[in-house]
Amino acid sequence: MLSTQPPILILTARAQQYQQLLEAALPDLTFIAAPTVEAARPVVEQTSIILGDPRPVRSLLNELPALRWVQCTWAGVDLLVEPGLRRDYILTNVRDVFGPLMAEYVLGYALMLERRGWQRFRAQMERRWDSTVAGTLRGKRLGLLGVGSIGGEIARMAHHFGMATLGYTRASEDCPHIDAYYHGDACLQMAAQCDYLVSTLPDTAASRRLVNRELLAALPPHAVFMNVGRGSVVDEDALMAALQEGSIAGAVLDVLETEPLPPEHPLWTVPNVLITSHTAAASFPTDIAPIFVENYRRFQAGEPLLYRVEFERGY
Amino acid sequence: MLSTQPPILILTARAQQYQQLLEAALPDLTFIAAPTVEAARPVVEQTSIILGDPRPVRSLLNELPALRWVQCTWAGVDLLVEPGLRRDYILTNVRDVFGPLMAEYVLGYALMLERRGWQRFRAQMERRWDSTVAGTLRGKRLGLLGVGSIGGEIARMAHHFGMATLGYTRASEDCPHIDAYYHGDACLQMAAQCDYLVSTLPDTAASRRLVNRELLAALPPHAVFMNVGRGSVVDEDALMAALQEGSIAGAVLDVLETEPLPPEHPLWTVPNVLITSHTAAASFPTDIAPIFVENYRRFQAGEPLLYRVEFERGY
Repeated sequence: MLSTQPPILILTARAQQYQQLLEAALPDLTFIAAPTVEAARPVVEQTSIILGDPRPVRSLLNELPALRWVQCTWAGVDLLVEPGLRRDYILTNVRDVFGPLMAEYVLGYALMLERRGWQRFRAQMERRWDSTVAGTLRGKRLGLLGVGSIGGEIARMAHHFGMATLGYTRASEDCPHIDAYYHGDACLQMAAQCDYLVSTLPDTAASRRLVNRELLAALPPHAVFMNVGRGSVVDEDALMAALQEGSIAGAVLDVLETEPLPPEHPLWTVPNVLITSHTAAASFPTDIAPIFVENYRRFQAGEPLLYRVEFERGY
Repeated sequence: MLSTQPPILILTARAQQYQQLLEAALPDLTFIAAPTVEAARPVVEQTSIILGDPRPVRSLLNELPALRWVQCTWAGVDLLVEPGLRRDYILTNVRDVFGPLMAEYVLGYALMLERRGWQRFRAQMERRWDSTVAGTLRGKRLGLLGVGSIGGEIARMAHHFGMATLGYTRASEDCPHIDAYYHGDACLQMAAQCDYLVSTLPDTAASRRLVNRELLAALPPHAVFMNVGRGSVVDEDALMAALQEGSIAGAVLDVLETEPLPPEHPLWTVPNVLITSHTAAASFPTDIAPIFVENYRRFQAGEPLLYRVEFERGY
């Protein structure tokens, strides 16, 4: 049977894996697997639908006259919503799938900090029995900057460990796993109570440099800051100063202003920082492909797509 | 008001802290705080009730003519149930309080292994952006050797992370957080399915060397073994060989045959082993004191005590 639909472009480093998954799920369609921008160039003229990583999609954005819909493989679409870029197509991202992975990251690092995992690892290198008592998450307070599907899942797991959860949002108060909400300037009030402060915020005009000198100064000295959202949310100079001065106890940073972080950057060796190189929540094709399949069905049926990005708002 | 009761001996390194907590809870009683065996010697003649760590209690065991009840501050009472020691008194230990801490330990280490926390830490030392994709606990299988209050709590938290749970017990099948039970020789069958195998077993005749060459060989090569129970459960030579040969992926050992592990012991530097120096679940006086208070009430009322140890069984 010949397909009546134009081919769908898969524009991601893992294009082959996506192609297998999508051909199995949508056998009547034709997919073009393009692991690089160059591999996609021969089909840009007729491409109307793309499943792709934000970076290569952005590179090709002005060479796609028939473009109607981009399903992004990531949650972070900041590269595609910058002012000046075209907005005459539907952009959808992926949400919900990252919550459990992000929760594993945040709880895993928080637990390992409580357990002094890296100090004990060093003691082992020195063949030293380090029986320093470990801490516990039970009874500690986790503050979230941003309570979307990711923040909600982190809060849910924090509750399972007996933590109290605080949430900073623009206005929403609809997550059942947050014990107390804060808005506007009350962010400082929330910070002052946190044992852990975790940013899940995307890169938007409202979030940029929210974690600045003032907010960091409001944290108690035993607090740990974690960033699983976007690097632009943090004033990195202020964060480095806070860590140097010991005005906070540590930072776990998955995302940074500049990625990859250059070898000469001072952040690598600031005391009590752990850098995890943007690995908190990978986009597994087995999680993402079903989202494309469902959205493709909706697209064909003229129904609203899941996880549509509002260009103005930025997420 | 003069107390009509003989003083109660508190025989533990943290005796002062226990004394404060118990004097607040039981103001009519007199407590003798003995941080060492020597400090306790002046009162051995009249002592009938002890709250204490197993090691000093054992040292004094034959010098206590009036002994009626020992409330141990630990879960592990193997030092007090060895054949040949007196058994003419009631011995109670502490349970239930360790489950949440043990679950934090097991899940924390499992998460950090999935996330390659120590490899990423090394990459950071080398100022290297290590974006190797992290694994997830979701869908993985956790096998438990022993499903008491500790194993049950570990299984409960493992379920929250989307893991499947397998339990090896003598006969009991009463934990709601275990998906499948195994008994007797089926231990090998369970091991063959595990991504993580965790021993919570106490030191008993039945558990000694249960984790031997045969059981380790049954584990898949990607499996990680964890021990939060007692060191005697493991044949350490067989475990070192399995790690050296790469027939299992790693081991996280909180308890060992000899503690503290001597600096010259080869286990310190076997590949893929993490040694945590018996810190998985500390006995916090704030958790233990209420158990003593409740058991003291029961003791005075002639009711059965909580967590009574059967000397024959060993736990």
